[in-house]
Amino acid sequence: MNHLKRIGALRKCLVEIDSPAVIITHLPDVRYLCGFTGSSAALAVTRHAAQLFTDGRYIAQAAEEVQAAKVEIIPSGPSVAAVQWLAAQPGVDSVSFDGTHTTVSELSKWKAGLPAALRRKLLKALDAPLVEPLRWLKDPDEIEIMAEAAELGCRLFDHLLGFIEPGQTEVAVAAELEYQARLKGAESMSFESIVASGARSALPHGRATVAKLPKRGFLTLDFGVILKGYCSDMTRTLCLGKPTNRELQVYETVLAAQESAVAAVAAGVSCGTVDEAARSVLRSAGMAEAFSHSTGHGVGLEIHESPRIGAGQSSLLVPGMVITIEPGAYFAGEFGVRIEDMVVVTRTGGTVLTKSPKALIQL
Amino acid sequence: MNHLKRIGALRKCLVEIDSPAVIITHLPDVRYLCGFTGSSAALAVTRHAAQLFTDGRYIAQAAEEVQAAKVEIIPSGPSVAAVQWLAAQPGVDSVSFDGTHTTVSELSKWKAGLPAALRRKLLKALDAPLVEPLRWLKDPDEIEIMAEAAELGCRLFDHLLGFIEPGQTEVAVAAELEYQARLKGAESMSFESIVASGARSALPHGRATVAKLPKRGFLTLDFGVILKGYCSDMTRTLCLGKPTNRELQVYETVLAAQESAVAAVAAGVSCGTVDEAARSVLRSAGMAEAFSHSTGHGVGLEIHESPRIGAGQSSLLVPGMVITIEPGAYFAGEFGVRIEDMVVVTRTGGTVLTKSPKALIQL
Repeated sequence: MNHLKRIGALRKCLVEIDSPAVIITHLPDVRYLCGFTGSSAALAVTRHAAQLFTDGRYIAQAAEEVQAAKVEIIPSGPSVAAVQWLAAQPGVDSVSFDGTHTTVSELSKWKAGLPAALRRKLLKALDAPLVEPLRWLKDPDEIEIMAEAAELGCRLFDHLLGFIEPGQTEVAVAAELEYQARLKGAESMSFESIVASGARSALPHGRATVAKLPKRGFLTLDFGVILKGYCSDMTRTLCLGKPTNRELQVYETVLAAQESAVAAVAAGVSCGTVDEAARSVLRSAGMAEAFSHSTGHGVGLEIHESPRIGAGQSSLLVPGMVITIEPGAYFAGEFGVRIEDMVVVTRTGGTVLTKSPKALIQL
Repeated sequence: MNHLKRIGALRKCLVEIDSPAVIITHLPDVRYLCGFTGSSAALAVTRHAAQLFTDGRYIAQAAEEVQAAKVEIIPSGPSVAAVQWLAAQPGVDSVSFDGTHTTVSELSKWKAGLPAALRRKLLKALDAPLVEPLRWLKDPDEIEIMAEAAELGCRLFDHLLGFIEPGQTEVAVAAELEYQARLKGAESMSFESIVASGARSALPHGRATVAKLPKRGFLTLDFGVILKGYCSDMTRTLCLGKPTNRELQVYETVLAAQESAVAAVAAGVSCGTVDEAARSVLRSAGMAEAFSHSTGHGVGLEIHESPRIGAGQSSLLVPGMVITIEPGAYFAGEFGVRIEDMVVVTRTGGTVLTKSPKALIQL
């Protein structure tokens, strides 16, 4: 990871918004910019300097992880210290901060730590986040890790195919999944695993329960692992026993919608166009209402990043983005289907990272 | 859970601070006050009314979970809708909010959703949280669940005693722990499990790594489960092989410190006094420096709640509080020991919920 380059890119943004300095407190942003993975830190960046503030628990860790910024160890309150340091830098007459990751109380504490003359005018809430758009575009290093995380997800799915059988609880399937993930090197799961069987497959976010897998019916598995800080995300819907004609028809339609959206991915295409590629297939099949969420989202150090791949979204895809494509169709009280891949945006199309088969698997 | 009573207690606080209304957005607070467990909601409470705002995903769930407030389903932005609703209530000329759980951007959105005349003066950041102090005191229902969660933790510890052996990785121990937790009914772990062996036991927050358990040395296990929303938390330090005299002496001193603090727990005693009960034992043994953190913290719907059981803390313990008592001693590069129980504060003392043995276990 080239952190100096990332901090350089942040400085270009500072020039663009005509701001001399910024304080970064959202930990995934801090990690992205300087590599620090501790649980308490603030990064201060001016046009000429970058300094990370953290506490005594992290002396050794910060020395090992952080090369692109100076490290200052303080007893507590890293963000207050960062604001004070910024206020004392030559040429810094205002400090930008991300209002979506700063609480009202935190801002009050920052102000209270400043000389009275600076309290009212030094700190400026940003209209739009600065670091998040930088994180959209993954470096080759990041894509390599994310491909590894996605591949681990696929291996886990493969393992589950040999484990799942009617009569087991959803929780037992989730437990096996998470146990194997740990043994195979995942730091943790990237979100609460979804294991939703039978009529519960109609719940887009059906957490694993003690419900038993039916002899016949759909089973939706939506899960991800974290590897070296990066999240994977994939969904497959299986069929226990033989599907009905209607189930088969819904499955094939969702699969066609998913493949249509994957095929639509390419640099320069809008997020709304990708969403519409999935949505139009479901609409044509009379299932517009059954698809009640967006087609996908960015993924990286966090499981949900922008851009959102939703109806009417005008943001354009750029090479290096990693997004999910996950249309579904849900029929309350009956069943649901969702199929999801992680896709890297390239100049000419998209590269699918989650290579598990998508043709309907019957167990 | 008597949610009407809880909302009644919140109204008493409103009277005390002379505020006609409050908006609650921190989800554990929302759950505490009205029982709703969804991932997007805001609760608006006036002296006479309470209304929960959430979106279409939660129609059925909100109807099932929420009796103590009216439910209003809105397309998105529950907190903006709640502020607008509050602004329209008779007699509501100001709305309190918790600045520690409200971002600067969220506050801007709330203001933007109000008529110009109300923007500047309606919303008032609270100096101190309103709901958190209510949550300090657990109902008998809550204590019963927390006792169950603690007891599950103890059963998991027991299981691990039969599983752990030299040569296994820390991660394999964590994987087994988390697998069994799931199978035995935990919704999830209450925090990232700590499995720290050998010299790594000197790290107060040593996440499980691929390090192999040594033939001889300490192994610290610090973990908790979530059951019906409530967190458990316990730590035990084991010895693989025979301890050295020094290891034994440190262990016995930490145990004496832990038992001294548990014995100090009672209604009316200050948090600082309980901390000192542990700290003074370690100080007398020349280990003051080795005990680098607080003695404990409140626990409940969140793993870390106030009060903090730390040096000089003047808050007084009250019957119904559930706190952890977890002193430790850490010698960098050598080893560390920590022992932790969950304790319910009673009128005359404390009831330990985590009943696993504390005498040194050799494996």
